[in-house]
Amino acid sequence: MLAEIITIGDEILIGQIVDTNSAYISKELNKVGIKVYQITSVQDDRKHILQAFEDAKKHADLVIITGGLGPTKDDVTKQTFCDFFGDTLVEDPAVIDNVKELFKKYQLNKPLPANFRQAMVPSKATILMNQYGTAPGMWMDVDEVVFVSLPGVPYEMKHLLQEEVLPRVIKCFNRPHIYHKTLITYGLGESAIAERIADWENELPEDIKLAYLPSLGKVRLRLSATGKDKKALEKSVDSQMEILEEMLSDIAVGFEGETSIAELIGKILTEKGMTYSVAESCTGGRIASEITQYAGASSAFMGGIIPYDTGLKTKILGVPKNIIEQYNVVSIPVAEEMAKRCCKLFESDYSIATTGIAGPTKGDGEDEVGTVCIAIGTPNGVVSEKFSFGNDRYRVIEKAANKALEMLLKEISKN
Amino acid sequence: MLAEIITIGDEILIGQIVDTNSAYISKELNKVGIKVYQITSVQDDRKHILQAFEDAKKHADLVIITGGLGPTKDDVTKQTFCDFFGDTLVEDPAVIDNVKELFKKYQLNKPLPANFRQAMVPSKATILMNQYGTAPGMWMDVDEVVFVSLPGVPYEMKHLLQEEVLPRVIKCFNRPHIYHKTLITYGLGESAIAERIADWENELPEDIKLAYLPSLGKVRLRLSATGKDKKALEKSVDSQMEILEEMLSDIAVGFEGETSIAELIGKILTEKGMTYSVAESCTGGRIASEITQYAGASSAFMGGIIPYDTGLKTKILGVPKNIIEQYNVVSIPVAEEMAKRCCKLFESDYSIATTGIAGPTKGDGEDEVGTVCIAIGTPNGVVSEKFSFGNDRYRVIEKAANKALEMLLKEISKN
Repeated sequence: MLAEIITIGDEILIGQIVDTNSAYISKELNKVGIKVYQITSVQDDRKHILQAFEDAKKHADLVIITGGLGPTKDDVTKQTFCDFFGDTLVEDPAVIDNVKELFKKYQLNKPLPANFRQAMVPSKATILMNQYGTAPGMWMDVDEVVFVSLPGVPYEMKHLLQEEVLPRVIKCFNRPHIYHKTLITYGLGESAIAERIADWENELPEDIKLAYLPSLGKVRLRLSATGKDKKALEKSVDSQMEILEEMLSDIAVGFEGETSIAELIGKILTEKGMTYSVAESCTGGRIASEITQYAGASSAFMGGIIPYDTGLKTKILGVPKNIIEQYNVVSIPVAEEMAKRCCKLFESDYSIATTGIAGPTKGDGEDEVGTVCIAIGTPNGVVSEKFSFGNDRYRVIEKAANKALEMLLKEISKN
Repeated sequence: MLAEIITIGDEILIGQIVDTNSAYISKELNKVGIKVYQITSVQDDRKHILQAFEDAKKHADLVIITGGLGPTKDDVTKQTFCDFFGDTLVEDPAVIDNVKELFKKYQLNKPLPANFRQAMVPSKATILMNQYGTAPGMWMDVDEVVFVSLPGVPYEMKHLLQEEVLPRVIKCFNRPHIYHKTLITYGLGESAIAERIADWENELPEDIKLAYLPSLGKVRLRLSATGKDKKALEKSVDSQMEILEEMLSDIAVGFEGETSIAELIGKILTEKGMTYSVAESCTGGRIASEITQYAGASSAFMGGIIPYDTGLKTKILGVPKNIIEQYNVVSIPVAEEMAKRCCKLFESDYSIATTGIAGPTKGDGEDEVGTVCIAIGTPNGVVSEKFSFGNDRYRVIEKAANKALEMLLKEISKN
């Protein structure tokens, strides 16, 4: 069975926001065996929306629509959705109650007439109550295609998808299983990988699809398959993945999963009862921010220091001034001192230290823009490496943060 | 004139990546007066791609395609693109040279046959040389619709768009001007705003469009217009925006621009010759990371400390232990001490301090999940406030970081 996603909103088409809803919905639909045929972003325009609905109906069994359900004039989705099915809007008392409750819960002023207009809904639709906003979701099952309209605010959409849409989808549709497994590799380009695995790729069973996903410094290899028998499906993909991993054992670092590298580090260290900390110069808090976005980070992460100004590396962290003067602030000896002293200051077992030139100007460094020295403090000493990450500031920070976490993971996985 | 964007790749439709290319392209096209009619994401599938090309041709004068140009088997865009125009692939010696140069520049091994296959290009296409990757862009001008195919790797796409595509677009098309201006407001819901400005909204000239963009704690109000006369256009939007800002003066904090709030703070302080620093507990580096992603951050930003573990607030930052014990670690007195001591430690004029419970568990705090205390250190003392940001960890961190930067901006704008 196939789904289509339609996201509605001028803000998407003028590039004012990035549409993250589609990726979330696609991933969740895949998990329950539903393949997404197409994602279409259209304007807040009645004619355009109707056209998109017509087109989607041709391919899909399920159409998920987000956006355009707000209480203001620029939002035309609800009326258009209603008209598409030749339906009329009627007041739903349960939505009225929900609006009142929301205003009470969030201690807002009295609801306005516009808020209560959210209770006008298509008479034939099943209403999906929104606990986090005033716009309800709508489920319309007509002519064997199900259309679902959800608000565009991400957390409202996510909540409704999880609580109301997916349980209904699982009940209503006969779905196969979809299984993806993705191997992460570092250090070899996609052409070189393709050449190395060519014989194996040519012999891959027809129902297993291989995709190459290159990005900054890494290539991900994804195997995908769809089928009725979940166990057989997983077994067949897993066994091919084993062969692939074996062939690429020198460059493979693991599989992509729900767990990010920062989360994985936190879990491993928590299990070991050990701790870590960061001293970030050129990455400016990016690594700490990555670490602390996961729940439970505090059980292994002690904290961090961002000695952005060169003098602070000495003042707060205690890196000897003569080392900075002798080797330059962007250097392996300085990175290693930072890592050692970070462990000491934060009383942690491990540490990450970064010093580099993110650009676009050279700052206090002598090297080229993009030069970054990373050191990892461990209970058995320090390891370090110097990198060139190009001349785009954003990419330098991103690559350095990824590489630093990768280096730490390697160290904590040793024992 | 209208454009369409087609992004190609199974990774988008299974939700493995978020399509950020479309937003970037839309924004850049808008800047040169081109409106994007629709964005469509399709699979790495020949038939599906051909269908998308056909559909796009119906509405658009310009079709920008990204993705599927890699050297591996799963990439089918180039052959499909070529076939769509009834063209044949021929070898372009300039691309061969480019591949060789790239391998030399990045000190890679000898190019493989797969890399040289990138030089097979449609005979009728104008080739757009890619300085950062082996896949060239292709510009095809047939039947009065221009189709442009670009690689999907974001920095390769951006480079080609800026250097090769936009200059050609500006030359080839007669374009109007598009002008957007967006007012940022905090503290009032969209319905309440709509009610307050209803009379003005009803009287808005037909060619100016108003949009409401609600998100975490803020509502953005965008006015958009399109026209031939750039000056008249801007004047008419700006004068309406002035009225709007006046009506919402109690909740408006400024206009959305190229400058983010963190960048703006850096600029203002640099001009004043003043500095700032951060002490982030619950925001865990998020604020510092936001600050340091902009070039030039180092001229005003001294650095930061992330005393994630409660004991570190005393040990490194020097917050008296008895204050933490008396008031609890998540409290206004602790936030204020952190802010004061942060200024001292980093020898900065201003500081931001955050302490809170991001959740999902309470940690060392006594309050509810989502409670955050923010203090701003200034040359004239400390200001602070306590907030409830809900129970979603990611949102708590995001809201706290935004609010903290907003509070600092307010302080530095006072004199």
